[in-house]
Amino acid sequence: MTEPQSSPPRGVYAAVLTPFSADLEPNHQAFVAHCRWLLAHGCDGLAPLGTTGEANSLSLAQRLGLIEASAAAGLPMERCIIGTGSCALADAVTLTKAVLASGGSGALLLPPFYYKNPSEDGLFAFFSEVIERVGDKRLRLYLYHFPQMSAVPVTPALIQRLKAAYGDTIAGLKDSSGDWNYTANLLKEIPGFGVYSGSEQFLLANLRAGGAGCISASTNVTAPLAGAAFRAWQRDGADALQQELTEARLVLQGFPFQGGLKEVVARLTGDRHWLDVLPPNRPLSPAQRDQLFARLKEIRGLDPLLKAA
Amino acid sequence: MTEPQSSPPRGVYAAVLTPFSADLEPNHQAFVAHCRWLLAHGCDGLAPLGTTGEANSLSLAQRLGLIEASAAAGLPMERCIIGTGSCALADAVTLTKAVLASGGSGALLLPPFYYKNPSEDGLFAFFSEVIERVGDKRLRLYLYHFPQMSAVPVTPALIQRLKAAYGDTIAGLKDSSGDWNYTANLLKEIPGFGVYSGSEQFLLANLRAGGAGCISASTNVTAPLAGAAFRAWQRDGADALQQELTEARLVLQGFPFQGGLKEVVARLTGDRHWLDVLPPNRPLSPAQRDQLFARLKEIRGLDPLLKAA
Repeated sequence: MTEPQSSPPRGVYAAVLTPFSADLEPNHQAFVAHCRWLLAHGCDGLAPLGTTGEANSLSLAQRLGLIEASAAAGLPMERCIIGTGSCALADAVTLTKAVLASGGSGALLLPPFYYKNPSEDGLFAFFSEVIERVGDKRLRLYLYHFPQMSAVPVTPALIQRLKAAYGDTIAGLKDSSGDWNYTANLLKEIPGFGVYSGSEQFLLANLRAGGAGCISASTNVTAPLAGAAFRAWQRDGADALQQELTEARLVLQGFPFQGGLKEVVARLTGDRHWLDVLPPNRPLSPAQRDQLFARLKEIRGLDPLLKAA
Repeated sequence: MTEPQSSPPRGVYAAVLTPFSADLEPNHQAFVAHCRWLLAHGCDGLAPLGTTGEANSLSLAQRLGLIEASAAAGLPMERCIIGTGSCALADAVTLTKAVLASGGSGALLLPPFYYKNPSEDGLFAFFSEVIERVGDKRLRLYLYHFPQMSAVPVTPALIQRLKAAYGDTIAGLKDSSGDWNYTANLLKEIPGFGVYSGSEQFLLANLRAGGAGCISASTNVTAPLAGAAFRAWQRDGADALQQELTEARLVLQGFPFQGGLKEVVARLTGDRHWLDVLPPNRPLSPAQRDQLFARLKEIRGLDPLLKAA
């Protein structure tokens, strides 16, 4: 059976930060405004409710609320890949259904991450149950490979098994391992698989290997640079843009992502509520903050952005 | 301020399994019946909704439903230490409030386990927010130290900091690390701290060091043996009972707990729905099952139990 092509487009995705209000509830208005800023400043799509978005620190109701608010605000849901992972099967199903109900098709799904060393059969059963229970051919599932955080890798063997069973529903993967060999191998084994690198450091390499682009935490800040590199990727000058982008990324990943990126967005927006994070994440210390801004000023491509703040 | 002593009693606790109905919803009736069986066959208390109970594979609604069903069925909530951990702060708060609303006081709280290498400040902030938001002096919090599963250890320094801030609310800890030195060190550093060993293998050692007993997966099956060892712990013959108990434990921990223990309970109850587990856990294979029962028959103290099945 041929399904209509409904995969989100390739390019630069921001793993969108989640802003909070004073009581640590997600701030829908600030979230939507930041999403609009990202789309206007170089991002091709949005990946809310992932690791950067502190999704696993949010309740189901808080996550559903953010999906509904995004759709209600008119964000382009077809350009979103939304984190719907949960250790709880029932919650992963509810969230994935909510993505489709909101008008989107892309869901980014972590393996269940509490039990360690799960069997491949157990992981297949989890993804399989989600797909069967959601029961919607429009679904485009992106597997989320982030062994350093989930402690549960998504192996090529598991992906092949899922693709054999569910075809185009298994649309791609976010590779946050930082291991370029994993990405390269996957793109060779499964041509056309929608593999996004978890860092814009690999943006050009990913595209040149036939990948789909990047879904990255730091593009919450580097969006203008990353967007420029993506638009230029088949032209002269792409490598110079990539180099600048990589420098920015390397500075940002030297600090805790939630605390560090929120410092920059708080400065850009003038809204100090942006500094709040949910435990166990913590805001930057004043010393870390000063160090971060000092280092970011060295990145030429970010200078106009920071000057505007 | 002196609070009334409301800590759950010392002794043998079962980390209660969660049975499911055909649609993988928790089966309240089978759960309550198993809890009653455990209390009638050697358990001093119950620890539902932990790792063994697949709590992190359940939705918030499913977990709340099981707590409410337990109270409604008249289970002795004051003898329960109920798992209320979640990566999501809001859920940990909701679940812990539900324990108090159900008439209980004991909550077993995992550290948030998605983000790895969280700072001690971040973990303190998480536990602190839970305690402050619950805002009930009756709460008796047991920290859940299970680094092999959560990947986030509960350090003695964190415990001391929490005790300094919240006193008797920080009532104890379940040590599932299997590292006896951790338990022994904690009982020396914080005399009277309610430390339960995560394995009945350490039951006598725990009690002799001033600990509170054990909270164990395998006591879903070894309850009669464990109860006998606990009642005899200050008498002659305790060591022989402990030895038999340890043998049973070592057999059971050679198999995946959920699948293996559920095989035994399914046989005891004649209810094959007991075999169901939530992914990523898997039922035992037929070969594993046969091996498990063959090995269990070698344990003298379990023989009457298995013959009755």
